[in-house]
Amino acid sequence: MNTQNPIFIPGPTNIPEVLRKAVDMPTIDHRSPIFGKILKPALEGVKKVLKTTQAEVFVFPSTGTGGWETAISNVLSPGDQVLATRNGMFSHRWIDMCQRHGLDVIVVPQQWGEGVPAARFEEILAADKQHRIKAVLATHNETATGVRSDIGAVREAMDAARHPALFLVDGVSSIGSMDFRMDDWRVDVAVTGSQKGFMLPPGLAIVGFSQRALKAIQTAKLPRTFFDIRDMAKGYANDAYPYTPPVGLLNGLKIACDMLLEEGLENVFARHHRIAGGVRQAVAAWGMNLCAVRPDLHSDTVSAIRVPDGFDANRFVAHALNAYGVSFGTGLGDVVGKVFRIGHLGSLTDVMALSGIATAEMVLVDLGLPIRLGSGVAAAQEFYRQGHAAIQREAA
Amino acid sequence: MNTQNPIFIPGPTNIPEVLRKAVDMPTIDHRSPIFGKILKPALEGVKKVLKTTQAEVFVFPSTGTGGWETAISNVLSPGDQVLATRNGMFSHRWIDMCQRHGLDVIVVPQQWGEGVPAARFEEILAADKQHRIKAVLATHNETATGVRSDIGAVREAMDAARHPALFLVDGVSSIGSMDFRMDDWRVDVAVTGSQKGFMLPPGLAIVGFSQRALKAIQTAKLPRTFFDIRDMAKGYANDAYPYTPPVGLLNGLKIACDMLLEEGLENVFARHHRIAGGVRQAVAAWGMNLCAVRPDLHSDTVSAIRVPDGFDANRFVAHALNAYGVSFGTGLGDVVGKVFRIGHLGSLTDVMALSGIATAEMVLVDLGLPIRLGSGVAAAQEFYRQGHAAIQREAA
Amino acid sequence: MNTQNPIFIPGPTNIPEVLRKAVDMPTIDHRSPIFGKILKPALEGVKKVLKTTQAEVFVFPSTGTGGWETAISNVLSPGDQVLATRNGMFSHRWIDMCQRHGLDVIVVPQQWGEGVPAARFEEILAADKQHRIKAVLATHNETATGVRSDIGAVREAMDAARHPALFLVDGVSSIGSMDFRMDDWRVDVAVTGSQKGFMLPPGLAIVGFSQRALKAIQTAKLPRTFFDIRDMAKGYANDAYPYTPPVGLLNGLKIACDMLLEEGLENVFARHHRIAGGVRQAVAAWGMNLCAVRPDLHSDTVSAIRVPDGFDANRFVAHALNAYGVSFGTGLGDVVGKVFRIGHLGSLTDVMALSGIATAEMVLVDLGLPIRLGSGVAAAQEFYRQGHAAIQREAA
Amino acid sequence: MNTQNPIFIPGPTNIPEVLRKAVDMPTIDHRSPIFGKILKPALEGVKKVLKTTQAEVFVFPSTGTGGWETAISNVLSPGDQVLATRNGMFSHRWIDMCQRHGLDVIVVPQQWGEGVPAARFEEILAADKQHRIKAVLATHNETATGVRSDIGAVREAMDAARHPALFLVDGVSSIGSMDFRMDDWRVDVAVTGSQKGFMLPPGLAIVGFSQRALKAIQTAKLPRTFFDIRDMAKGYANDAYPYTPPVGLLNGLKIACDMLLEEGLENVFARHHRIAGGVRQAVAAWGMNLCAVRPDLHSDTVSAIRVPDGFDANRFVAHALNAYGVSFGTGLGDVVGKVFRIGHLGSLTDVMALSGIATAEMVLVDLGLPIRLGSGVAAAQEFYRQGHAAIQREAA
Repeated sequence: MNTQNPIFIPGPTNIPEVLRKAVDMPTIDHRSPIFGKILKPALEGVKKVLKTTQAEVFVFPSTGTGGWETAISNVLSPGDQVLATRNGMFSHRWIDMCQRHGLDVIVVPQQWGEGVPAARFEEILAADKQHRIKAVLATHNETATGVRSDIGAVREAMDAARHPALFLVDGVSSIGSMDFRMDDWRVDVAVTGSQKGFMLPPGLAIVGFSQRALKAIQTAKLPRTFFDIRDMAKGYANDAYPYTPPVGLLNGLKIACDMLLEEGLENVFARHHRIAGGVRQAVAAWGMNLCAVRPDLHSDTVSAIRVPDGFDANRFVAHALNAYGVSFGTGLGDVVGKVFRIGHLGSLTDVMALSGIATAEMVLVDLGLPIRLGSGVAAAQEFYRQGHAAIQREAA
Repeated sequence: MNTQNPIFIPGPTNIPEVLRKAVDMPTIDHRSPIFGKILKPALEGVKKVLKTTQAEVFVFPSTGTGGWETAISNVLSPGDQVLATRNGMFSHRWIDMCQRHGLDVIVVPQQWGEGVPAARFEEILAADKQHRIKAVLATHNETATGVRSDIGAVREAMDAARHPALFLVDGVSSIGSMDFRMDDWRVDVAVTGSQKGFMLPPGLAIVGFSQRALKAIQTAKLPRTFFDIRDMAKGYANDAYPYTPPVGLLNGLKIACDMLLEEGLENVFARHHRIAGGVRQAVAAWGMNLCAVRPDLHSDTVSAIRVPDGFDANRFVAHALNAYGVSFGTGLGDVVGKVFRIGHLGSLTDVMALSGIATAEMVLVDLGLPIRLGSGVAAAQEFYRQGHAAIQREAA
Repeated sequence: MNTQNPIFIPGPTNIPEVLRKAVDMPTIDHRSPIFGKILKPALEGVKKVLKTTQAEVFVFPSTGTGGWETAISNVLSPGDQVLATRNGMFSHRWIDMCQRHGLDVIVVPQQWGEGVPAARFEEILAADKQHRIKAVLATHNETATGVRSDIGAVREAMDAARHPALFLVDGVSSIGSMDFRMDDWRVDVAVTGSQKGFMLPPGLAIVGFSQRALKAIQTAKLPRTFFDIRDMAKGYANDAYPYTPPVGLLNGLKIACDMLLEEGLENVFARHHRIAGGVRQAVAAWGMNLCAVRPDLHSDTVSAIRVPDGFDANRFVAHALNAYGVSFGTGLGDVVGKVFRIGHLGSLTDVMALSGIATAEMVLVDLGLPIRLGSGVAAAQEFYRQGHAAIQREAA
Repeated sequence: MNTQNPIFIPGPTNIPEVLRKAVDMPTIDHRSPIFGKILKPALEGVKKVLKTTQAEVFVFPSTGTGGWETAISNVLSPGDQVLATRNGMFSHRWIDMCQRHGLDVIVVPQQWGEGVPAARFEEILAADKQHRIKAVLATHNETATGVRSDIGAVREAMDAARHPALFLVDGVSSIGSMDFRMDDWRVDVAVTGSQKGFMLPPGLAIVGFSQRALKAIQTAKLPRTFFDIRDMAKGYANDAYPYTPPVGLLNGLKIACDMLLEEGLENVFARHHRIAGGVRQAVAAWGMNLCAVRPDLHSDTVSAIRVPDGFDANRFVAHALNAYGVSFGTGLGDVVGKVFRIGHLGSLTDVMALSGIATAEMVLVDLGLPIRLGSGVAAAQEFYRQGHAAIQREAA
């Protein structure tokens, strides 16, 4: 197993050296004051990344899926109605979780490749005069299709419908990489994990709860203990945890926030946008299309690339790993075999991205697609060169 | 923060160098075949540590608390009756979790320091002619009081009462350090974590499900998704995971099992017994008493030591950390302030234990207790010397 | 400082994860038997990499420069004549060292870009009827010019001249990456370091002494203590060291040899040849020339690329680092400003090489050279694709 | 191999976590500006540890032995007279090196256990009217015997004799742990390594050259290249190195200096004095004697403990490792078998020292010596308790 090549799955990401070392800690006593010196700045750092001053952040030894469960089980009760759209594998799974927890999900079906249908949400919410819908669920970035939805637009739709539902947003593959404005968009619960924009190993569910969401906790009747925000909050009040905390990952989270904030969030987003832009240039040069149906839906963290009919995208992923030792993402669910995915999030550089593009190109040619070697690379190179020149001009 | 002294909290334990490095991995593609080469041996290794050939093992990115939730939510339904005893903080918390999940818990109160009351359980189970009790819960090792209960005796009680309840056992602070016989004792769900006998950082809930428990899953109605064994099993069938797996910790678990099995489980248990024995010799030399009320209840992973009336045990823990940079465990719940705890589990040596005993001794004297410096150390030294001589004789 | 991009300096190389961890050791007692279990296999492993069964290997906490000093000071005496050529910075430096140690160096000047002139050496040696020349020095791979000389041909020249001089070879940037045959070529002293083909951090001088060289030690009068082979040999006889050994690096050396031998030396050489070939294809596609004047001199570990007259090659290196965070090698000595160098040795993959080529291309364009973006990458991609296909065919 | 116990050899020391991580670096380009950001602060830090403002510091990829060679070969010429005493294995070896390099050493023999004889030095120097003696050599701390000599007294002797000889001091096992005043004592060359007071892995020779010593370089005729200060100085002037620098260790050195200076040099020395004091209390409690013949010679970094006649001290060391997994130092040279050594330098705590003392006690009893278990530990505990109380009082 050669681990020297970068990976291009849409998370977990390549882990920066500094974060590898931050996570790899000897055991400390998590009931001693040392722990608070890790926990507190980690929570404060996440708030800044979420662009919130009013919300509370909670971090569980879990994953994004556990974050979803934290979100719904702390603010909802069995039988509650929620509104959601299914436009990819991850929105599908969250809906499935809601149903398994006894929620009544109004599912707005969407083509995979489309975003969250704000207008349709507005209609449905406006029609819900009795406010039976308790929560609106939205997946900011559909990792399966490389689609970033307009969360601000969803909030506007809710406002236009004057609907008081809580607003729960899955930001697992967006937060820390693309702009996320918890306060501006009045998101009530924001969910993410450690292994995407925070560039850490998997193992943390990271959730932000607005003051409104924190109030909803009192009446929520879905059973919960491990994911209960109340126990977590009680612990935090004493710089402690309700059970054994994942100290190393929390320390990593602290340092990850420092890294993101030191680079500057807007710079981090711009870097993701530039790197993603190069990948998109390459895809265009190959004459291929993204799964995302419109440019405004293009994700800056992952690109799902449609392969020609009759071509099995899974062969792409297998051949890349076997022949060149590079991992890309397979298609999931409805688009299995129809897309392969290039993850371009976290601690990535233009140079690393180029090696992924160059590899993809070799794989496509190896598998017989009519692609010209170097064509995608050249398009991305030009894009990155100009990006760099622009940075230079600004700095000057 | 000096991290060179060993820690003596009852978990997370001191982490061996080899496991630090096993956990600290670069990112691999968890959907590639590489992942199976980590997951499979990890699961097989845990089975051997659990002494089971029939059960299935599942590992969640979570903690022992998540393991408890996995145990109950996968085999029980709202309103189900369960039988449990409260004899320490951790049994208390598991009971509390059951109640929050809508279970009807028959709680047998016990003095903290006592074990699981097998005879009383037998009476209750025998009286439950209609088999309304669906599960018996037992905490193998009460970490709060340093009490190891006789799980075989609980099974015998269940058998004597001819009761078909499922048998759920919390082995968080016993498994991997003290003998645990999942098959012999017909344990239906065994729960543990990564950070105790497996000597890893926290972050994994490790659960074993017997074939009977796996059948109960079909009818269990407690809502669950993150902790749903069915999704996990479906993933494992494809060497995969239902969500992002904690690859580094799983790799650590694989190597931890290798380490335990290479040393030999019985040797691991004997080592824990010897090290614990030295600690108990020291406590006796100090003229102090354990919280555990009888020798057959003495835990080999943690000793809770009663302090004289009027003495605040929390001062012991604070002074040890502040003056000497050594972490011991505080008392929890009913025994807060009344006991301090010495954790002696995981990758510990006689030599490390002696440094803990020597530190405890200085702290006790510093705080004015009438202890003779060196007295506990000498008692432990003699015990360890004899232990070593016995090992030599056997080897000869 | 972003350390996620690969580096393309001609050593130290990118360090594989496994070797990072092998070197990063806690302190052990180097006078205990544990040390021999590291030292012995390390020495045996190096012998295999040197393709020798008769020589003795010695490893010093030093660098290749220290290896040169070890070579000359252990077999020569002040005033001894040695024969050498100056065809690059490193051969120049070794000559300089000889002169500073009072040796009488017959220097055969060569154009930088040329190899060791075997025919000229033969003439000089044949003319030395009285065998005043005590040693022939040869640099296997001139790291400054990317020139690999034919060491076998030098040995043939010595044989043809029937000259008994010792044969000292600098294999710092060849051994472990390109074929080196200590026994076949009857090399008397072979010198290398940890940070090139062995893929380790710098810090070790690694030298092989033939039986003839070991005899010469008795009469060599150059003063030496730190680099005295006799003290080292005395230590090794007891699995010990004459002073404090660099245990972590020695452990790394042991594992590095395991890695090289497991991959198979011929496979390692083939991999270097393929990766270098791709780089050379790219250079040709750019319409540029190597410093090495003939294809048979092309090094498989480093390519020195001539820039057009009037273009400062140092700007290339500076811009690559500043704009793209990638390190290439500058020109040294006579070719400073006239060449830049791409190191392609050690634990490198085709994919990593492509990222270096792609970066170099962007830099060349940024600096105004008439290069077409993607042209070099495409040439290398085609080369690597075919190389991979050939591997597949062989495996089938 | 259990690496969890602390080691008690007199260096290399236990390595703090922070330094393990500082050393374990990915490769950077040592010819890029990044390197200067490591090198410069490392050199400046060492100056502060040496308490010098006027000297220049040079760091070689080597060991203390290489530091000795650097010292003599840069300021002396073949045939030069030097004055030294032989009072242990390390002073012996430095003398031997001088002789092998053609120096004329006036050796003042001393009992092993004695210090450098300042008065006798004064007599010899005063008698040397023609100033044929070019250098005085002194070993600050004889690691073999646990003897710290009074370097200030040697300087006073030189001054009293009005002798202009250079003053070369081996501070390998003192610098960074015991007070060393390069400027006050007008030391001309100070030698140390990475693996003692700097708490790093072995691999660095660290030398300070006074302005006088730097002048002497111009006329020194001993051959040298690898250890030539002139090449090193030329490199440093450009933030570079004359050959491949050991970047990781240099980074470690930078951080090690930060750690020492943050703790405060005087606090570091006081800590060593306290920990050593506890060890000495234990030795006294055992009724045993140190090799150092007078209290003012007692080293704070290593204690050499005499064993009773007829008892083989090597058995102590072997049994400690085999039975308890703890490494102590053997006797060397004249005192082999007659002493064992407890190293107590570097990043050590009272608690770690107690585990060494407790282990030594078990070993002594195991081997039949009439020692009472706990007696040495109790003496050390009392000493450490009082030491801690004093720290508390000062802080209050």
